[in-house]
Amino acid sequence: MAQTLSLPSLPALLIEPVVRMALLEDLGRAGDITSDAIVPAGTEVEARLVSRAAGVLAGLEVAATAFRLMDPALVVRTHMADGARLSPGDAVATLRGPARSLLAAERVALNFVCHLSGIASATRELADVVAGHKARIVCTRKTTPGLRALEKHAVRAGGGANHRSGLDDAMLIKDNHVAIAGGIRPALERARAQAGHLVRIELEVDTLDQLEQALAVGVDAVLLDNMDPPTLRRAVAMVGGRAVTEASGRITVDTVAAIAATGVDLISSGWITHSAPALDLGLDIEA
Amino acid sequence: MAQTLSLPSLPALLIEPVVRMALLEDLGRAGDITSDAIVPAGTEVEARLVSRAAGVLAGLEVAATAFRLMDPALVVRTHMADGARLSPGDAVATLRGPARSLLAAERVALNFVCHLSGIASATRELADVVAGHKARIVCTRKTTPGLRALEKHAVRAGGGANHRSGLDDAMLIKDNHVAIAGGIRPALERARAQAGHLVRIELEVDTLDQLEQALAVGVDAVLLDNMDPPTLRRAVAMVGGRAVTEASGRITVDTVAAIAATGVDLISSGWITHSAPALDLGLDIEA
Amino acid sequence: MAQTLSLPSLPALLIEPVVRMALLEDLGRAGDITSDAIVPAGTEVEARLVSRAAGVLAGLEVAATAFRLMDPALVVRTHMADGARLSPGDAVATLRGPARSLLAAERVALNFVCHLSGIASATRELADVVAGHKARIVCTRKTTPGLRALEKHAVRAGGGANHRSGLDDAMLIKDNHVAIAGGIRPALERARAQAGHLVRIELEVDTLDQLEQALAVGVDAVLLDNMDPPTLRRAVAMVGGRAVTEASGRITVDTVAAIAATGVDLISSGWITHSAPALDLGLDIEA
Amino acid sequence: MAQTLSLPSLPALLIEPVVRMALLEDLGRAGDITSDAIVPAGTEVEARLVSRAAGVLAGLEVAATAFRLMDPALVVRTHMADGARLSPGDAVATLRGPARSLLAAERVALNFVCHLSGIASATRELADVVAGHKARIVCTRKTTPGLRALEKHAVRAGGGANHRSGLDDAMLIKDNHVAIAGGIRPALERARAQAGHLVRIELEVDTLDQLEQALAVGVDAVLLDNMDPPTLRRAVAMVGGRAVTEASGRITVDTVAAIAATGVDLISSGWITHSAPALDLGLDIEA
Amino acid sequence: MAQTLSLPSLPALLIEPVVRMALLEDLGRAGDITSDAIVPAGTEVEARLVSRAAGVLAGLEVAATAFRLMDPALVVRTHMADGARLSPGDAVATLRGPARSLLAAERVALNFVCHLSGIASATRELADVVAGHKARIVCTRKTTPGLRALEKHAVRAGGGANHRSGLDDAMLIKDNHVAIAGGIRPALERARAQAGHLVRIELEVDTLDQLEQALAVGVDAVLLDNMDPPTLRRAVAMVGGRAVTEASGRITVDTVAAIAATGVDLISSGWITHSAPALDLGLDIEA
Amino acid sequence: MAQTLSLPSLPALLIEPVVRMALLEDLGRAGDITSDAIVPAGTEVEARLVSRAAGVLAGLEVAATAFRLMDPALVVRTHMADGARLSPGDAVATLRGPARSLLAAERVALNFVCHLSGIASATRELADVVAGHKARIVCTRKTTPGLRALEKHAVRAGGGANHRSGLDDAMLIKDNHVAIAGGIRPALERARAQAGHLVRIELEVDTLDQLEQALAVGVDAVLLDNMDPPTLRRAVAMVGGRAVTEASGRITVDTVAAIAATGVDLISSGWITHSAPALDLGLDIEA
Repeated sequence: MAQTLSLPSLPALLIEPVVRMALLEDLGRAGDITSDAIVPAGTEVEARLVSRAAGVLAGLEVAATAFRLMDPALVVRTHMADGARLSPGDAVATLRGPARSLLAAERVALNFVCHLSGIASATRELADVVAGHKARIVCTRKTTPGLRALEKHAVRAGGGANHRSGLDDAMLIKDNHVAIAGGIRPALERARAQAGHLVRIELEVDTLDQLEQALAVGVDAVLLDNMDPPTLRRAVAMVGGRAVTEASGRITVDTVAAIAATGVDLISSGWITHSAPALDLGLDIEA
Repeated sequence: MAQTLSLPSLPALLIEPVVRMALLEDLGRAGDITSDAIVPAGTEVEARLVSRAAGVLAGLEVAATAFRLMDPALVVRTHMADGARLSPGDAVATLRGPARSLLAAERVALNFVCHLSGIASATRELADVVAGHKARIVCTRKTTPGLRALEKHAVRAGGGANHRSGLDDAMLIKDNHVAIAGGIRPALERARAQAGHLVRIELEVDTLDQLEQALAVGVDAVLLDNMDPPTLRRAVAMVGGRAVTEASGRITVDTVAAIAATGVDLISSGWITHSAPALDLGLDIEA
Repeated sequence: MAQTLSLPSLPALLIEPVVRMALLEDLGRAGDITSDAIVPAGTEVEARLVSRAAGVLAGLEVAATAFRLMDPALVVRTHMADGARLSPGDAVATLRGPARSLLAAERVALNFVCHLSGIASATRELADVVAGHKARIVCTRKTTPGLRALEKHAVRAGGGANHRSGLDDAMLIKDNHVAIAGGIRPALERARAQAGHLVRIELEVDTLDQLEQALAVGVDAVLLDNMDPPTLRRAVAMVGGRAVTEASGRITVDTVAAIAATGVDLISSGWITHSAPALDLGLDIEA
Repeated sequence: MAQTLSLPSLPALLIEPVVRMALLEDLGRAGDITSDAIVPAGTEVEARLVSRAAGVLAGLEVAATAFRLMDPALVVRTHMADGARLSPGDAVATLRGPARSLLAAERVALNFVCHLSGIASATRELADVVAGHKARIVCTRKTTPGLRALEKHAVRAGGGANHRSGLDDAMLIKDNHVAIAGGIRPALERARAQAGHLVRIELEVDTLDQLEQALAVGVDAVLLDNMDPPTLRRAVAMVGGRAVTEASGRITVDTVAAIAATGVDLISSGWITHSAPALDLGLDIEA
Repeated sequence: MAQTLSLPSLPALLIEPVVRMALLEDLGRAGDITSDAIVPAGTEVEARLVSRAAGVLAGLEVAATAFRLMDPALVVRTHMADGARLSPGDAVATLRGPARSLLAAERVALNFVCHLSGIASATRELADVVAGHKARIVCTRKTTPGLRALEKHAVRAGGGANHRSGLDDAMLIKDNHVAIAGGIRPALERARAQAGHLVRIELEVDTLDQLEQALAVGVDAVLLDNMDPPTLRRAVAMVGGRAVTEASGRITVDTVAAIAATGVDLISSGWITHSAPALDLGLDIEA
Repeated sequence: MAQTLSLPSLPALLIEPVVRMALLEDLGRAGDITSDAIVPAGTEVEARLVSRAAGVLAGLEVAATAFRLMDPALVVRTHMADGARLSPGDAVATLRGPARSLLAAERVALNFVCHLSGIASATRELADVVAGHKARIVCTRKTTPGLRALEKHAVRAGGGANHRSGLDDAMLIKDNHVAIAGGIRPALERARAQAGHLVRIELEVDTLDQLEQALAVGVDAVLLDNMDPPTLRRAVAMVGGRAVTEASGRITVDTVAAIAATGVDLISSGWITHSAPALDLGLDIEA
């Protein structure tokens, strides 16, 4: 759990614009007309943010930001931190303040924390399976548009690691690049000629023959795509520590252990960000 | 399938800001450094957007917008329309243009169309199960922050209907509102007193006793939350056409048929927007 | 005055972006060069926001936001609330703080509160005339670009009610829709087939014959456009409570009483938002 | 009419953001749900933008921008230009294109052109009254938040001239500045010491005694506030061409001729921007 | 130094958006990954913002805003004000707060204050040379895109004055305008006919013959472009106080004294904004 | 010159928002009032963008974007590409179109291309001096707020290479990080524990002793700060190819050759981005 303790918190400057946008999306042009009609203006309430399922928490600060941006008079006290394992009934945070504001922000806050905790939980599930191996679970760029920074954070909260953040912070050479370049060697050479000294290069290979070509030129990491465990094992042996090895392709809870057992450094999954079901958390309000 | 034919297309003005934001999120500060290094500037390619699984298409115009915003020289020809049922291998669209631009936009375009098609497919799966009944599948406000308009569109593409768009276009009175108001009657009366003449009011009830109180006051729709099929059936009978009836709570492919058989008008599911797995579509590029 | 007491306050999240934009529009690239040149940096002042005419207050919180966004050191104390009837000389709020900031924000704050109070006052004038009847005054979508939420709020402050907020929260079928659809029946049937269960449908009719067709199909509300009082009276009788009735067209203080006397539910006026003269409020500064 | 011929057109870069914002405000999260439900997707229409009242046109290009931003397939042909005098029935522009898009943009386009033509018409009404005198009608900073550039343009279209654009492009010393500075002389001296060489200074005076003090120091323009015609005439004589003279305060169609007859250079009116009623223009659609 | 004492401070509303944008530009999608990995979350530090060279301070409030926007828990105490002359080692401000936040904001804060102080220092260098003459140093529109307001402020901090802020707050007639108009007289007459009463007009002339034509028509200011000192002296004499005189073209520390000695009112330099080297300031952190 | 040929072009999506912002900054609220007053509306002109000094071109596409965004009717034909060496008089591009639009965009276009070409020229000057050595010139994060992507591009156009883009795409461990961590070893170990597999780590060292500690732990790159050439030479020998070596600190045209001769891989300069003087380019307009 060491990595959870030192989980870097996203700067407020990155969280606030996304949360403000989401609140405005829900408020529309007239705000929470139901609560405005029914709840007297001065009503104060207390509420607890409670987990209704087992999983891993992520996005608590994002949810808290939703309440605070809606109304600075809403006081949020957190009892856990992102990365914490949740059991049904765990109280994650306590809120107190104007009822209208709390009800108006509730859905947006939950949409964030349930979505991000879902990602953290899915990541943790895979990470737990491979816990005895050196392999780490990493995410991809298959994230929800607009939420990449938050989802990458959720992956870390779930015990995973991050792949590149976008198109511009590392080079990932795929089959189409190789085809256009006319081979692995020219692709790698062009990449190295252009890459800054702090830019790493990873190459996707589908076969051991391609892997051999890549190692002959030299590369920082290899993405071993859709290889079965025996092939992966041979690939890891061929690499012999000269590059980071990443396995990808149809990773599931059922297959991930066998893949980790091949000795790869990383196992990447698009599923943990694009298809993880939301984790059920809710708000218990005491009127 | 009538509703598919007349599926309203989202205005470009609503699509473009979201897509532009997503492209900038991926481009970062330096753009697609891999393609820029490896792909010669003038290279042209053709590509096909192909389904790799069975499901329902949604977000094709969003994906096309991603390519066009990245580079107006990218020509997109669509072969299907949102709402179409997909089989593995179906070519959804054909693209032609500068290779660098196509590769730079590929991931964002896919992130949109896979996510939205996942929602449409999940909706369609439920809708097909209840096809013999009058019940329609409807979504909730449990949508991904920033993508509500797109996800509501995907639900329609999947044969579902939309609940309110946000907090301001209809009143949905929940248990907390009732508790604060001190009862169903005062809650409904306050709501009606404030509601504009084009604003409908729906009330969430957990028991038949609450339903009886609501009907005594009068209400446009009732949300029958977490009732089992026998109770739902009695609720529908009690309502007797005086209000729209909506069933909600733990809707799954396994339970939805029994719920539809109770005669409810609507079955709402948060799952179709917050937890539907992405549908696998990919880009086949011919260099 | 019951509706004034429970007037829903717009969320700060909806007010602040509009006010910030307006302040930046006035500050330009160099700020208030007059006050910066003449007023010593540390000067503090007190001021009172005072009505100079009779009318109804609206937008006080918007004006207060202008001062606070310009400088959090500006302290605003309000003595009245939106919806209050104003007489010349009434002190609406008291301000205290840095003179430069107060002078820099003054015009924008006044532009908002005078414009919105003008709308509230015009609405109230009509509302007072029809006070003995059941008819309520409602606004339209003929609002100032960018200010719809604020102007709809001002209408409520003046004792009016709101029509739909925009194109997406209710259906209003106009003559052109009917013409394109080929008749009232197909227009209404297509609308009902597409409308969500919380979306109401209103139809514009110009003649009693059209009204009869509409009632035969069924509709939530009818917009009786440009009918004279006798025709309106017959229309109300024909409807017989089966739909909300709204009268529109050339509503003035002189004609509105006769229209209300016909028994219509609503009387809509574009004039109260697009043409109401500003109410005169000013800032009395004590240097 | 010379000034109309050379009326500077606002750059598209200034018009488009305001129009886009207004369209999004009206489209909300789901667009024009009425037209989408009723109008078949491929329907094309023609329409004419027609004046329904006498007045002066302003904002035609803004309205055209609304249609084009909604859908580039909407073709707008203009028959008149801003500044033209309108009679009821005059066709201002012709449109052709997709019916759904035209209906969706109609209200926003009209909201702009009716509001801005209202300002131009009010300005022209005053300008016509003073046509025999040298006085020109000028606007103030009492404009609608967000629309200053457009409204200043409308004033020019109505034959008026513009006062400063905001707080930063000229100095206007008001009574509060004088009070804080401790007199007219120190206020003017501080202003002149700070003003750039392209910044003009205007001073508001309420009495001839104040005017005398101002002229003794020297100033570019004097704002003669709330003076009656005889006093204004004496003020103009005192100034003797040493400064631009501007009369302000309760300018109406009834009083403006007498004020112009005093020989002042400028007559400023807040009313023409903050209270001018909209001019009635409409869209005649031929389905 | 009087003008330094009363240096108008830019409104926070103008500073904050630029600083927020700059922080987000540096934070990217994941924030300061170095500090997050190495610095424990609770670590507090003190730091001093110190000058490492001689020059003039500008942008201190901008730098302070960078720290505060990154983290309101960062407390900034300033010891000097913009316009102050700096010697190497001068402590300009003291900071205290969370180490991670301080390190994350450091570079952006320094980028602003070093750039703006560079402009102030370059301006002051020229201003000191001409101190015995009436000529003032003024800037141009040759500013860094996005930073005009800040750079104009820095020029004032360096003892300079500002030219117009942009294209819309004064008229500057250049050679191309004259060529298109067909001469100086028509250019000036068209300008005067359109200019508002608070808009000044300046004309660029290259020869004494052009100057004579300009003076014959009348103009507020003349830009004497690229004239040698003897010609400038004759130009000043020809003007005889009837217009502000501004010398421009290849102004350097070596040439500026001779130009000032000609008696011109203003000497404008693009160099002080587009080419002034940054002033070296740094942050001394005490861990 | 190979790297110039394959200079990656920035995506239009990254250029356009910055250019639009700069144009709006200059247009203010009323646009180019000088040209609007003097230049008849239909006037067309031709112009050439010409270098007036020797240097290296950068930002040509940015300048072209300024003209096109101002008015799509402005046709820009480019004759050179970023990275080209310029001599005085070289025609870089030809423009044709509406005179008003061209004059309105001129200054912003020039501000970009002169600023960016200044950076490219300064980079090229250093790069030419070290041409015989393996060392490459690299930039830093000392860039102008808001222009980082453009300035990094200009550095590449000048033959330089890019350091990290921001705080989030690589780790650069500085003296303060080491001090807080309590030594080089813990700092490097914490960094490596958190860094993703595509994130490189660079460490700043001031002494050979520190370098030795760093090499003992292992690191991707070392920043050798403020070392004299003899020390640098020993450092390079100590590293022996185990890490990229980067020299920094007071790099000038006079010192850079001696530093390159030490065998370092990279020489970084903040000066080329924060202090390079603008390159003089101008627009020759043929009316």
